[in-house]
Amino acid sequence: MASTTTTTSISVRLQIPGNLYKAEKKNNNVGLAISNCYYHSRNGALIKLKRRRFRAIASASKSPKSLDAINGKNLNGTYVVDKKSEILTDVSVDNSPLHAYLLGKFVEDRFVYRQTFIIRSYETGPDKTATMETLMNLLQETALNHVTCSGLAGDGFGATREMSIRKLIWVVTRIHIQVQRYSCWGDVVEIDTWVDAEGKNGMRRDWIIRDYHTREIITRATSIWVIMNRETRRLCKIPEQVRHEVAPFYFHRVAIAKEKNDSDKIDKLIDQTAQTIRTGLAPRWSDMDANQHVNNVKYIGWILESVPRNVLEEYYLTSMTLEYRRECRQSNLLESMTSPTSKVDEDSKSNCIKRMADMKYTHMLRMQDDKAEIVRARTQWHYKESHDHLSI
Amino acid sequence: MASTTTTTSISVRLQIPGNLYKAEKKNNNVGLAISNCYYHSRNGALIKLKRRRFRAIASASKSPKSLDAINGKNLNGTYVVDKKSEILTDVSVDNSPLHAYLLGKFVEDRFVYRQTFIIRSYETGPDKTATMETLMNLLQETALNHVTCSGLAGDGFGATREMSIRKLIWVVTRIHIQVQRYSCWGDVVEIDTWVDAEGKNGMRRDWIIRDYHTREIITRATSIWVIMNRETRRLCKIPEQVRHEVAPFYFHRVAIAKEKNDSDKIDKLIDQTAQTIRTGLAPRWSDMDANQHVNNVKYIGWILESVPRNVLEEYYLTSMTLEYRRECRQSNLLESMTSPTSKVDEDSKSNCIKRMADMKYTHMLRMQDDKAEIVRARTQWHYKESHDHLSI
Repeated sequence: MASTTTTTSISVRLQIPGNLYKAEKKNNNVGLAISNCYYHSRNGALIKLKRRRFRAIASASKSPKSLDAINGKNLNGTYVVDKKSEILTDVSVDNSPLHAYLLGKFVEDRFVYRQTFIIRSYETGPDKTATMETLMNLLQETALNHVTCSGLAGDGFGATREMSIRKLIWVVTRIHIQVQRYSCWGDVVEIDTWVDAEGKNGMRRDWIIRDYHTREIITRATSIWVIMNRETRRLCKIPEQVRHEVAPFYFHRVAIAKEKNDSDKIDKLIDQTAQTIRTGLAPRWSDMDANQHVNNVKYIGWILESVPRNVLEEYYLTSMTLEYRRECRQSNLLESMTSPTSKVDEDSKSNCIKRMADMKYTHMLRMQDDKAEIVRARTQWHYKESHDHLSI
Repeated sequence: MASTTTTTSISVRLQIPGNLYKAEKKNNNVGLAISNCYYHSRNGALIKLKRRRFRAIASASKSPKSLDAINGKNLNGTYVVDKKSEILTDVSVDNSPLHAYLLGKFVEDRFVYRQTFIIRSYETGPDKTATMETLMNLLQETALNHVTCSGLAGDGFGATREMSIRKLIWVVTRIHIQVQRYSCWGDVVEIDTWVDAEGKNGMRRDWIIRDYHTREIITRATSIWVIMNRETRRLCKIPEQVRHEVAPFYFHRVAIAKEKNDSDKIDKLIDQTAQTIRTGLAPRWSDMDANQHVNNVKYIGWILESVPRNVLEEYYLTSMTLEYRRECRQSNLLESMTSPTSKVDEDSKSNCIKRMADMKYTHMLRMQDDKAEIVRARTQWHYKESHDHLSI
């Protein structure tokens, strides 16, 4: 006779070894407002990546000296940055086809890391365009390759050497993305990313996604990162040695102008304010990353589970802001909550009289058992019209 | 007060418009042994892909004449194939960096389509290597690009022009994959794919995945495809006109030798024979493809949900066979069933006395309400040892 395991909180937990579950409870109870990250130790993979890259360059590069340039960056060097300059000048370190097209390259005096991607068939969703999850995945990939190719990578996923020595990791606290146009299968996109200081103890990472052929900017994103001790799970100041490592890479440019950024507080949803609550969402084994945590990007799928079906089908997701507050493991059953925020004013300049109003929603993911918040989010949606370009 | 939607069969169904649900029931009840496919109409994306490619070649190719070669294939031409020849000769049609590295190219007298991929960070799983889902996704992508680049593509996802005229689509009935080694983040893999006849009315598609740098074959896969009318959902013979289109591409080579292939029947699991049953698995909005069906590859994640946790953690999935039997939509709640088949004999040649025996499992996914089968599967697992290469 078969033993039946249902997706209730208790039975799923039983699949987790005791010590793992204890560790998770410990992590969740340190009372931090933020503790989610995907920059945990994946040492093996990082070492592998570096080895592969060198081999690739050795076999394909026309200028072997570029090897020194990649890893020989003088970290004490300073750069004069023209804040107003937005002219793109390609000063790539290595232009071998394999490196340039599969791994990315530095441009603009090594302040910007650029990587090209082709949208794959399985990265598109029901409306045949790249999903928001796909975009976020590509942003993550570009950020990680930026850190690795900068020569700063320590033993963690995106951590620098000085951070690794101190058992520190980057954790993302907020990410905001604005999509002007979603790409289709076979479209080639080019992603630029760079970092800058954010207050005293934060780092800002921005991205721009361009259509490779038209050069049109189709997506902009910005994110805030802070440093956490991976053992105590407590936030800490950026140590001077770490600041010394990353500061030479700081680039004073913003992907999203201040007045267009979404930096407003996201309201907490409760049973009384949520319009829809989807319960019983169970992380799958395949949602876990190397650290047995749910990958940041996976939250998007769960958030969308409580969005009305007609909105998913008839609207483009044009803007999303995620505020990460807590880690999540496979043992946690989740609830996805959504509530309409307000209707965006109809565009008075629009020629179309019957144009549907855009939609704004507030979302929250929380643990099903203790209702602890995992992530708050805000989304904005634009009614789909044929051959429509999104405007935010 | 919020309205709470739980993941029970009934409440989820209510989110589906009535006509959609009816259509799905109709599809499920035609009594076909197989009806799953990912080759449905995605016309827009296909057209887009072709346009992009041409633009890319025009801007980057050193030999503009190759444009004619890509689309000018004489479909009446015949090829003399040396069945025993396995020597790889690169006769690529277009070698512009963008095309070669992002889109793929024909090799071996245009019988083999080859595409290169870099494993991205988010395509790796808890053990830091590319997941089985990732491998299957890459195989799908290569197959679709093969059809598109062959110049045969009609308006469907992988369908030829003569098929589109007749409203016919390819459906996969069986796929078998053998993994010798899983790649890590940053590894570059090269995938070869080709097709051949399979009996009177089937087509076989094979793949080989190589480590780009070592040239080692790390994965082999083979699949069987038949033709279905996309409206009646009935299987049909390959029309002469379609055979005429595809036959010039048939290539008499097998990725997996007959004696190493898994062509045995997969036993049906029932409540009494399943060791584990995971119920309440709910497809997410993001699991759907352009046709509101669950993408083939998504089944893998659900199958793994009923595999014992220690096996997922301590063993490599070295072999998987999927037998597709029915389509699945978002309205369907699923059950994942797993049962150990037998323990593989310990390798008597192994020096390691304490070597763990390999594992074999039988799986089934079925609808939760009417217990209708969706997919049967068989997996084989190899105990993880450090720096271990998998042997099947």
